[in-house]
Amino acid sequence: MHASDLAEEYPLVGLDTDALEAAQIMAKRRLPGLVVTDESGRPYAILPASQVVKFVVPRYIQADPSLAGVIDEPAADKIAAQLSGKRVRDLLPDNPHELPTVNADDTMLELAAIMARMRSPLVAVLSDDRIVGVVTASRLLSLICATP
Amino acid sequence: MHASDLAEEYPLVGLDTDALEAAQIMAKRRLPGLVVTDESGRPYAILPASQVVKFVVPRYIQADPSLAGVIDEPAADKIAAQLSGKRVRDLLPDNPHELPTVNADDTMLELAAIMARMRSPLVAVLSDDRIVGVVTASRLLSLICATP
Repeated sequence: MHASDLAEEYPLVGLDTDALEAAQIMAKRRLPGLVVTDESGRPYAILPASQVVKFVVPRYIQADPSLAGVIDEPAADKIAAQLSGKRVRDLLPDNPHELPTVNADDTMLELAAIMARMRSPLVAVLSDDRIVGVVTASRLLSLICATP
Repeated sequence: MHASDLAEEYPLVGLDTDALEAAQIMAKRRLPGLVVTDESGRPYAILPASQVVKFVVPRYIQADPSLAGVIDEPAADKIAAQLSGKRVRDLLPDNPHELPTVNADDTMLELAAIMARMRSPLVAVLSDDRIVGVVTASRLLSLICATP
């Protein structure tokens, strides 16, 4: 079995995609993260949903979460406003999660080996440097551990 | 809004749950990870799907994924057989991913702060030390970034 047989459609965002739009894609599709491509459409990084949460929570509250219990909780739209005017590149940490890649004609075992080695929840499948799909760890397990 | 309002049903497995069964739950529900509880039912750790993949891929291939391209690929059931007779505790790494917890009456902002600080994709919501549900980062974003 080849990587191209495993790849599924997965939302891609660019470094300049609107931050709120990216958050809404993750929210709507209940994804733990998005694949981020660079200006040329090449794989760049993974943006975890928890990183977006990190971006919208004030730093003094991250430093001491118990403070959140004693202040008036801001309305959801006020929290989301932190994303206004920001782009995906602003949300990424300094050392973003690397997005492992395989070629479309690599085998399932090669893909699994790369996922395992990088402990990555996602691997992007490339053909001619373009992303043709993504394989998640749970997708791979569904093929390995199929119930009869 | 309180953590208990955000919590959703999420599959829990125990340290002694059969490893193949745990993998099949992740596969079937396409989850990036499972919540693992200890013998008393208390939150113990997160088992990422990529960790299960790591467990089934032979070490010499993880060390050099290109080897996977030159050997005959084992059948899926032979790969899955690595999980046979194993339990969830065997799959967890030595330093498993910590599962952050909040109390049912903590606020959404407290929950977000803990998720942000620990960069965790999941937070378990407790009442009397029992897990009453789980909040994923994407669930939280769906509340924060709701489209009108």
